[in-house]
Amino acid sequence: MKGNLLVGQSGGPTSVINASLAGVYKAAVDIGIETVYGMRYGIDGFIKGKYIDMSDYIKSDLDVELLKRTPSSFLGSCRYKLPALDTDSNDYEIIFNRLNELNIKYVLYIGGNDSMDTIQKLSEYGKRIGSDIAFVGVPKTIDNDLAATDHTPGFGSAAKYIATSVKEIIRDSKVYDIKSVTIVEIMGRNAGWLTAAAALSEGEDSTGPDMIYLPEKSFDTNKFLDRVNALADERHNIIIAVSEGIKSADGSYICDGLDGTKGVDIFGHTMLGGTALTLSGLVGSELGLKSRGIVLSTLQRSAAHIPSGCDVSEAFSAGAAGVKAAVDGMTGIMITFERVSDTPYLMKTGTADINKIANEERLVPSDWILENGLLKKDEITRYIKPLIEGELAPIMTNGLPRHLVIER
Amino acid sequence: MKGNLLVGQSGGPTSVINASLAGVYKAAVDIGIETVYGMRYGIDGFIKGKYIDMSDYIKSDLDVELLKRTPSSFLGSCRYKLPALDTDSNDYEIIFNRLNELNIKYVLYIGGNDSMDTIQKLSEYGKRIGSDIAFVGVPKTIDNDLAATDHTPGFGSAAKYIATSVKEIIRDSKVYDIKSVTIVEIMGRNAGWLTAAAALSEGEDSTGPDMIYLPEKSFDTNKFLDRVNALADERHNIIIAVSEGIKSADGSYICDGLDGTKGVDIFGHTMLGGTALTLSGLVGSELGLKSRGIVLSTLQRSAAHIPSGCDVSEAFSAGAAGVKAAVDGMTGIMITFERVSDTPYLMKTGTADINKIANEERLVPSDWILENGLLKKDEITRYIKPLIEGELAPIMTNGLPRHLVIER
Repeated sequence: MKGNLLVGQSGGPTSVINASLAGVYKAAVDIGIETVYGMRYGIDGFIKGKYIDMSDYIKSDLDVELLKRTPSSFLGSCRYKLPALDTDSNDYEIIFNRLNELNIKYVLYIGGNDSMDTIQKLSEYGKRIGSDIAFVGVPKTIDNDLAATDHTPGFGSAAKYIATSVKEIIRDSKVYDIKSVTIVEIMGRNAGWLTAAAALSEGEDSTGPDMIYLPEKSFDTNKFLDRVNALADERHNIIIAVSEGIKSADGSYICDGLDGTKGVDIFGHTMLGGTALTLSGLVGSELGLKSRGIVLSTLQRSAAHIPSGCDVSEAFSAGAAGVKAAVDGMTGIMITFERVSDTPYLMKTGTADINKIANEERLVPSDWILENGLLKKDEITRYIKPLIEGELAPIMTNGLPRHLVIER
Repeated sequence: MKGNLLVGQSGGPTSVINASLAGVYKAAVDIGIETVYGMRYGIDGFIKGKYIDMSDYIKSDLDVELLKRTPSSFLGSCRYKLPALDTDSNDYEIIFNRLNELNIKYVLYIGGNDSMDTIQKLSEYGKRIGSDIAFVGVPKTIDNDLAATDHTPGFGSAAKYIATSVKEIIRDSKVYDIKSVTIVEIMGRNAGWLTAAAALSEGEDSTGPDMIYLPEKSFDTNKFLDRVNALADERHNIIIAVSEGIKSADGSYICDGLDGTKGVDIFGHTMLGGTALTLSGLVGSELGLKSRGIVLSTLQRSAAHIPSGCDVSEAFSAGAAGVKAAVDGMTGIMITFERVSDTPYLMKTGTADINKIANEERLVPSDWILENGLLKKDEITRYIKPLIEGELAPIMTNGLPRHLVIER
């Protein structure tokens, strides 16, 4: 190989972003790359001089298996956006100097839309200065909103956790012989893929949610209450799944109805939490029904104890495919998933020009979303079901899943 | 056998209350009892004439295995309290008439403190009228607050889910190179056992929570904020576990600080949810630190996809031991767990007079709770660790855990 490899992780954590990292590491070692460096805390950390030699932390095949089962970003992550190429070249000079110092010829970056912006800018800058370094993006996001790919690593495991949890919540909610309304809040500001996955909880042994509301369609509170009221005449227990990001027709978030709970996340963005509590409060005050709001919160993206086997395996493959693409001379691309067939489910990896992906957002098709919180279930099931299939048992020590970590 | 057996489930759901039901059913069938009836929705449903022949629903050993893995109460549950014996005998007459009609000689009731009150009253009434029906309680509660037993079925699996989730949340919270405070709210109005289980997330690969606050000790908001502030000087990410039921020295719930989020549960009790959000808001407003509140909610008691193997096995045994005790002629008792040794962990079942259990509450010893949200970790670990050990893999269909249900 003509040089070393650098890999980074960026954006929000998922249950399988480390499976992609494991795929990158294993493929790089197997292909014969001498040193695999890892950025600490993404490109932001790399600019600050934070990186590791990954072989200091991955010393055996067992470590690779533990890494595949470790949630969150092993290397640490960031949400840093590089400046536009023509405004400020300082970051770029630091980055390329460091890449040259370390003799790095292949840069892999695992992340979502914003992270692909980093790959786009670095490959463009590299072209301008005549660098031969390859920049390849490996997709990652539980939100499943990346363009140019059938789906993204991280989505299947989050979907499996959500469908499993909703199924268990449904069982729990039916325990008493009295009327109740349970509202489960699921992540998704703009894209409803994760919330749609709640539909998968329907099966021979479970009714699934009665209503599912995605952010792609504007939410009408009065129609919602009418529908709950009508359903309450038919059955005891009503289960509703809602995206945190559902909005009224005027564009205001439903969770804005609830004062006092607005927090800010660690980036200072107002958190959307409160949708389930707002609606649960309304069901109580307007309809006089007992109601409970449940927020699945960050466990959706970090519950590596129940990952999708399909997702882990595909995430690993995406990382490995990224290394092969870079070594084969490709740059300015992202690895994609192409669905060969639905039945049986067959998938192959491909590549797409990074310019078609960065900063784009892929939403649930509007014709899959019907009135009254109903979805086209056949389409949802056809699309999501294969992605939650299969298991990867955690490796347990002291009764708990074992993780591979740089620092405790 | 001299007659049939009736079993009921009562109180809140757990991940393993159906493992106890499976233990009752299997032992009853193996011992040669002809018909095993199940109360639908506990004693309340039985009074209303709701019961099933369990063999209509459990038709194979595979069904027994599925039942062991099904969360929530297979038969349905209630929170009905029988009237005092001397005030109103109407319920008792209905119950004993129906028991006699069905030729029932053994009644097993799986539940917590309130449910043991039912066993106490029924056995006392039986004595008064000279009935030969045996009434035996099988313990169940995630809260682990039953007297006269080392621990209760349901606690170990909830503790394992909590320790696993907190461990994953810790991993998730350390992903960025910036300061953050994460507050995890865990069930427990009066007893802090479940919240204490968050301490188990500490290990070779995890720091565990920095602070753990139980409801047994009054909560001082100013000291809490001082401690968070001091810790924020030492480290980037602070993780705090709090019981939903923590109270100020004046007896007011911390969650009362937050208006607008108070819901009522399906029994009309004010829900305590809001403790994590209240504290998270305070950390933001008083200390200017980025903070997030996470509420584990009902999944603590229904996450049967990651049960403790020890707990499932002990819950099954408790059910089976209840049948044996009843057939052996015991009545007015509850099955207990006696810890034979800590290292190695050895346990045996025993029995206790129901009068010593009903309506009692067992709390975390006060000398295990130190200042500043610290616990005596060696005591906590010695006591809880064996209870979360071991796995029982879910039986998966279509990528999700399969359950045994009466109705979807």
